[in-house]
This record gives sequence, structure tokens and C-alpha cells, in this order.
Amino acid sequence: MELLKQRILTEGQVLDNKILKVDSFLNHQIDPVLMQQIGEEFARRFHGETITKILTIEASGIAVALATGMILKVPIVFARKVKSATMNEELLTTKVHSYTKGITSDVAVSRKFLPPDENVLIVDDFLANGEAALGLARIVQQAGCRLVGVGIVIEKAFQPGLSKLLAAGLRVESLARIASFEDGNVNFV
Amino acid sequence: MELLKQRILTEGQVLDNKILKVDSFLNHQIDPVLMQQIGEEFARRFHGETITKILTIEASGIAVALATGMILKVPIVFARKVKSATMNEELLTTKVHSYTKGITSDVAVSRKFLPPDENVLIVDDFLANGEAALGLARIVQQAGCRLVGVGIVIEKAFQPGLSKLLAAGLRVESLARIASFEDGNVNFV
Repeated sequence: MELLKQRILTEGQVLDNKILKVDSFLNHQIDPVLMQQIGEEFARRFHGETITKILTIEASGIAVALATGMILKVPIVFARKVKSATMNEELLTTKVHSYTKGITSDVAVSRKFLPPDENVLIVDDFLANGEAALGLARIVQQAGCRLVGVGIVIEKAFQPGLSKLLAAGLRVESLARIASFEDGNVNFV
Repeated sequence: MELLKQRILTEGQVLDNKILKVDSFLNHQIDPVLMQQIGEEFARRFHGETITKILTIEASGIAVALATGMILKVPIVFARKVKSATMNEELLTTKVHSYTKGITSDVAVSRKFLPPDENVLIVDDFLANGEAALGLARIVQQAGCRLVGVGIVIEKAFQPGLSKLLAAGLRVESLARIASFEDGNVNFV
């Protein structure tokens, strides 16, 4: 997705040649016009697939999911990293490790929002080690739903996330694929 | 907002006559069609005001902010409850207490996304004790921005949030105002 790559090149900051900071348009400040285009691009990539629900994880995935849900006109569900006071039903849970934050979180979705007949598209802002996407895939499996695929805004292709998702038999669509960071610059695949 | 009230009446669950659970369309599962209508309604209520940025707090506020930002075509910023590993710039911070969760969180926004010339609209999913909205208002004040007002999806009018915001001189627009809970039912103002 050319527009996205341009924004990464002009606004992205590479920290320590390993973290890409895109907080001016994707995950702290969010550009709603770009986000709408991201939603349209996921709809285009998964065109022809039956999608009845979009699943993501709080917090940065919510905007990506909502933009996609608005285009596809299907509900979105975001997994919570901590159990909310109002989550009193049966939960689907798994553990997700964040290498960036160095913590493992319990992640939960109310089972009632993933009945077995759903066709679920997972979306998230980043794919690096694949922990979040694999955690969401485990939840879809626990729910007995069909997993249509995984839509990623920015994939760090030099990290093992994609291989793990492909090994699990998942279809993955990434809108920008980063091959490497080099002297603070971004090289795309 | 009639459509929202209908959803609250048909899908909302009242817990212990004090918590309203609307996780089927607002803050766990999200209905993107309703969310777009919520964005349109905030745009209508604040029509004529100059708004250059929308500010909210993770996680449930993000969808409300994005929907509103898509209509108004202005960037949104969400305050983070914990310092992110990539937040390395100067931060605007405050403490926000959640009565529902029984915890006080440090909330942070990167100063660069709130330069002093911004006209900021705060939005959030709920107004009860007003802690989150007042915390966001303090951040806008620290930033030296103009605060246009506060847009709330569901206001629990029997709790002190609104009075506190009005006492602080803020304009508040709530799309559904709940007068009381009674035997598990919702009475609107």
C-alpha cells in the first residue's frame, strides 16, 4: 500500500535499529483518513471471502479493526488485556507475550461474541514475533469459529511472525512489509 | 440520540443497579454502523466550532474518537494508561482514577501531538464520576490548547461527573443521559 509506505518513510522513526515508531499516524495519534484507506485495502485484499466478524487486541488494533469493520459493515471485537469488571460471562482466554514491552498479558474475549458460526478476520497494527496474532488465532480456535485470515498494517518481515502464522496454515495480508532497518532508515521488501 | 437509547434498552445489562454493561455494541464488541452514527451526531452537536484534534483515552474511547475524526477529518490522539516503550519524548501526564476498576492510572500524551494552537474536542464512551474527562482536560490545559468541549456517548446523570465538568467551565454533550437504574432497568433523563 503505497500511501502507507510513504507515511512510514516520511514520519516513521527507527529506534536502535529495531523499533519502528509510527505514533504520528498509527498508534498514538491516528490519521482517520489514512485509517479509512487501510480499511478499504483490507476489504479489497479479502474480497470474496465471507467475513462476519473482525477480531483485534486493545489498544492499537481497535482503530484498524473499526476502520475495516466500517467498510465491511461487520461488528468488531477487541480482546482485552486485563479482565474488565463487567466481564462476568464465560471467557475465551490465552496468554500473549509482548517483546517490545517485555511482559506477558492474559487476553480475554467473551465467548458470546464469537459463536461457532462466525467467519473471523484478525487485524492488528504490527506483526513482529507474531505473539498477538497467534494468541488471537488460539481464541478463534477455542471459539470453534472459522479463521478467514490475518490482516496486518506493518509487518517486520525480518522477524519470525510471518513464518509462524504461515506454519499455522493462516493466510496473512500485510499492507507494508519491512525488510530491514539500516542506519535509521526503513527498507521495504 | 434515539438509536443509541434503543440499543441501550434492548442490549444493555444493569449490574447491581450501578454498572451498565453495553459490551455488545460499545466497548468490547463494537457496532461500526452505530459508531459512525455516533461520530455524525458529535459532528452535528459541535457544528460551527473549530475542532482541529480529538482527544480520548484508551481503550474504549478509541473507537468513539476515530468515528468522530473520520467525519470531521481531523486527527485523533489517545492518551495511554501506561508509558509505552516508544514514548521517548516530552510527555503531558496526569493521574486518572477509575471507580469501576478501583485503580489509579498514570495517563500520558506526547506533547508534540498537542501543540498550543490546537482546538481540542475530548470524547469518551462513558461519563460517571468525570475522572477520565477531567484528566484529559488537565492534559489539554497543560498543553496550552483551547478545549472546545467534551462529547460523551453515555452519561450516568445520577453521578457527579457532569457537575464537575460544568464547574470547570466545560461544554458537555452527552448522546444518552441515564437518570437512574431501577430493578435492572434503565430510565433516561
